[in-house]
Amino acid sequence: MTEGLPMAVPAQGLPPRVRIHEVGARDGLQNEKAVVPTEVKAEFIHRLAHAGLTTIEATSFVRPEWVPQLADAERLFPMLADLGGAPDIELPVLVPNGRGLDRAIALGARRIAVFGSATESFAKANLNRTVDESLAMFEPVVARARDDRMWVRGYLSMCFGDPWEGPVPIHQVVRVAKALRDMGCDELSLGDTIGVATPGHVQTLLAELNEEGVPTDVLAVHFHDTYGQALANTLAALQHGVTTVDASAGGLGGCPYAKSATGNLATEDLVWMLDGLGIETGVDLGRLVATSGWLAERLGRPSPSRTVRALSHKE
Amino acid sequence: MTEGLPMAVPAQGLPPRVRIHEVGARDGLQNEKAVVPTEVKAEFIHRLAHAGLTTIEATSFVRPEWVPQLADAERLFPMLADLGGAPDIELPVLVPNGRGLDRAIALGARRIAVFGSATESFAKANLNRTVDESLAMFEPVVARARDDRMWVRGYLSMCFGDPWEGPVPIHQVVRVAKALRDMGCDELSLGDTIGVATPGHVQTLLAELNEEGVPTDVLAVHFHDTYGQALANTLAALQHGVTTVDASAGGLGGCPYAKSATGNLATEDLVWMLDGLGIETGVDLGRLVATSGWLAERLGRPSPSRTVRALSHKE
Repeated sequence: MTEGLPMAVPAQGLPPRVRIHEVGARDGLQNEKAVVPTEVKAEFIHRLAHAGLTTIEATSFVRPEWVPQLADAERLFPMLADLGGAPDIELPVLVPNGRGLDRAIALGARRIAVFGSATESFAKANLNRTVDESLAMFEPVVARARDDRMWVRGYLSMCFGDPWEGPVPIHQVVRVAKALRDMGCDELSLGDTIGVATPGHVQTLLAELNEEGVPTDVLAVHFHDTYGQALANTLAALQHGVTTVDASAGGLGGCPYAKSATGNLATEDLVWMLDGLGIETGVDLGRLVATSGWLAERLGRPSPSRTVRALSHKE
Repeated sequence: MTEGLPMAVPAQGLPPRVRIHEVGARDGLQNEKAVVPTEVKAEFIHRLAHAGLTTIEATSFVRPEWVPQLADAERLFPMLADLGGAPDIELPVLVPNGRGLDRAIALGARRIAVFGSATESFAKANLNRTVDESLAMFEPVVARARDDRMWVRGYLSMCFGDPWEGPVPIHQVVRVAKALRDMGCDELSLGDTIGVATPGHVQTLLAELNEEGVPTDVLAVHFHDTYGQALANTLAALQHGVTTVDASAGGLGGCPYAKSATGNLATEDLVWMLDGLGIETGVDLGRLVATSGWLAERLGRPSPSRTVRALSHKE
């Protein structure tokens, strides 16, 4: 029944092409209770690439005891060497500090990401540091990566609301974003970690960042679907000119049945909208749905993505 | 944790107020497998009104053997008399034909809706008629209701895609919309019955309707969340100037676990976005979530609304 659907009907003022930064293998699997076997991760990433995704965040070089789900980074990353060799596939990895950068460089990673916070509470909870202390920790990491001509992404979490602090003032987000940009981050990913953002908030934050000298073309958006707002917020960001959108295959990264579910925007729901808008992504929706279906079987639970469910039921 | 959330940050070019046409009690319960007891329905509608909803589609006067879920219309409607007496609460009912109108009038209903289709396949499946035959059937019903100074809504289903025909040409939707408008419908509800619409398609259909003489202020939108697109499509419609949005408390009307799930946009997800945009609805989100939680217990399954799940887990 989806033959010819969605019907492609462009809207005014949207970009012709969007780059999807696929976070399922890192942000998604990091939040799964079960530790997924390294071979399954490698096949997942190969399947994502085969579905047309070109920026696939592969893993994280945090201390293995902190995130056991990703403790196999040293074994996984070399299994992706054939993908990394392709000129059009990028495999960024998360590094929290200098030690993580050493490990990433030793394996030949060319793109890294650091993980900052817009709020003191989350910086404390996640990094056991103040916001300024965490920025001070990132500074030499980013400087060294830049000296090595690596590409650096700065994640900025809790940009719209925080579980301890409630609403997050926009000027507070702008200050941390400018600091990450000033230290040399090529791209900033604005995270709505608890999913509370709405479209006006998104557009106002983007406009304030522009006013303070952070241009739209270095900005990515990273929405969670906790309150069902992720895709509407993405549309608002596209209308502002954003062309890089984070998403997670199958909506990996938060279980909709669990307490405080905070799933990522599902890549399939995003691709359905972009296909319908006639916006190029290079992604083959059918292959992507099959990939998420394949992984869901291995995880032993259905995907929370509505598109994956709807299309899987029809096969 | 939702104290002060969502943070209200308006966006440009949106209406200051939106009227929610709540369809859970009719469109939602009609699609439940179980027949809900009349007393539960009556309490559900009273609770919806107490949560601030002012337009609540109450039931349907179809032949009882066709829709057993709503066969109790004669018993239910009088149980809402105290609500119907309030000047600010509207309780429209669906009527398929002249016999249904007789029954609605006998009970004192003042607002009715007819249920048309933009496609031949769905007209055949739902009404066993061609599109033109169904319009001919509605014409005397609408005329009689108008003579009696009743308010009439025309539903138009399959406006964006059809399970048998695939993509639905916009001119085909426009033709049926004009016919319903010409016969005297006060309001037209544009239905994406299988949830395949995307924002550009929505805005283009609205613009074409305007060009053909159907003004935005008589249009409502009715989205389903099958592919996760309902709220983004709603945002697109609001940006076009639409101020009436159909939604279903708790996302009633399609089970996300079932084959071909085609749930309605959840009223709670909509209210979260509108609250965040600073758009007035008169709805108290906490009361509404409590109402959907209460009904979900009676139905014996969790609400598919992400907002209901997120807020219920935190209580």
